[in-house]
Amino acid sequence: MSRTTPTRTAEKYPVPDRAALDALIDSVLIGHVAFVVDGGPVVIPTAIARDGDTVLLHGSSGSKWMRLLATGPPVSMAITRLDALVVARSAFESSMVYRSAVLFGRCSAVEGEEKVTALDLITEALIPGRVAEVRRHHAKELAATLVLRLAIDEWTLKVSEKEPEDGADDVAGEAWAGTVPLATGYGVPIPASDLRVGIPVPPSVQALDVLG
Amino acid sequence: MSRTTPTRTAEKYPVPDRAALDALIDSVLIGHVAFVVDGGPVVIPTAIARDGDTVLLHGSSGSKWMRLLATGPPVSMAITRLDALVVARSAFESSMVYRSAVLFGRCSAVEGEEKVTALDLITEALIPGRVAEVRRHHAKELAATLVLRLAIDEWTLKVSEKEPEDGADDVAGEAWAGTVPLATGYGVPIPASDLRVGIPVPPSVQALDVLG
Repeated sequence: MSRTTPTRTAEKYPVPDRAALDALIDSVLIGHVAFVVDGGPVVIPTAIARDGDTVLLHGSSGSKWMRLLATGPPVSMAITRLDALVVARSAFESSMVYRSAVLFGRCSAVEGEEKVTALDLITEALIPGRVAEVRRHHAKELAATLVLRLAIDEWTLKVSEKEPEDGADDVAGEAWAGTVPLATGYGVPIPASDLRVGIPVPPSVQALDVLG
Repeated sequence: MSRTTPTRTAEKYPVPDRAALDALIDSVLIGHVAFVVDGGPVVIPTAIARDGDTVLLHGSSGSKWMRLLATGPPVSMAITRLDALVVARSAFESSMVYRSAVLFGRCSAVEGEEKVTALDLITEALIPGRVAEVRRHHAKELAATLVLRLAIDEWTLKVSEKEPEDGADDVAGEAWAGTVPLATGYGVPIPASDLRVGIPVPPSVQALDVLG
């Protein structure tokens, strides 16, 4: 039962390519990383950003889980995006339009100048254009942050069907069927309570629109 | 290093209560379940619905992972929701407003009449009001579906700060700071290509608005 052997569900759908995987990673803000502690599973959410053939994650140097991940135990990372509800004529055929990737590997710590570059890349993934609007990192900030890298090497990707697949009996019935798109968008920026008077919303924040 | 001992980050923030956990679970469509296979971690996304003091998940009876989970190995389930970006004056203080729960336990299969009730509850969690609009389950559909239940027993919940926490030097500078809300909403329903003429969008689908 290999973890990257296509499951029954995966066999049903076309197997997407690496470009589809990259597009998925680039369209989400967080992933979920699982690892083993004392023989049992632990899963945590983490902000992610793609750097070429790797995924970057980061966290506090004081986080026990980040410190554990930096030692390179086996990890599994899920990257998931819901794109729509599939409303079929029956509950059974109702589902979601989703893209679901799972990566396997081991993280390694990113250090030195590479760490600065990685942190800038993470900021740009969250808010494109923001790096040019803020000051450079302080040394103590760099020390307080752990940046990890996971190679995009062993992975699976499922992209689900987009249409209900009701049988002829149900299609002939009275129930509606279709899809309902799901999209995550940004609302109106809320200034910090301690924002000084006269500082306008910057271009990077103004440009935030729909996620992905 | 107990898996539910508050981490450094959790200590920084107020510990929310069970009502906050329930509200989080009720406001999302999917969770991420991790388990151990051959000593290594595997994590997969799954639709979830809360049933009182338990979380329901379901999948195909043909899914190897669902069948494995039904045997009751230790699992960890992450339930995560992003509510906003925190745009600070520095990259270091920039973050996200999020709610993050992790449950630990073992799943058990839901059978018989309880399975029918559970599947209806799952449908209602996805699309409130939909159960009354569709036919009842066929026996072969029930057989093709595995429904699992995970008790809300051992869990952690983190609810992050909502404001940037820049130091005085940065507050005195020229960079903007604030939060940008994130919301997931439903778009205009798209009829299935095989929808018969004259079947209107049902009330349950019309009522879909903003997730959570």
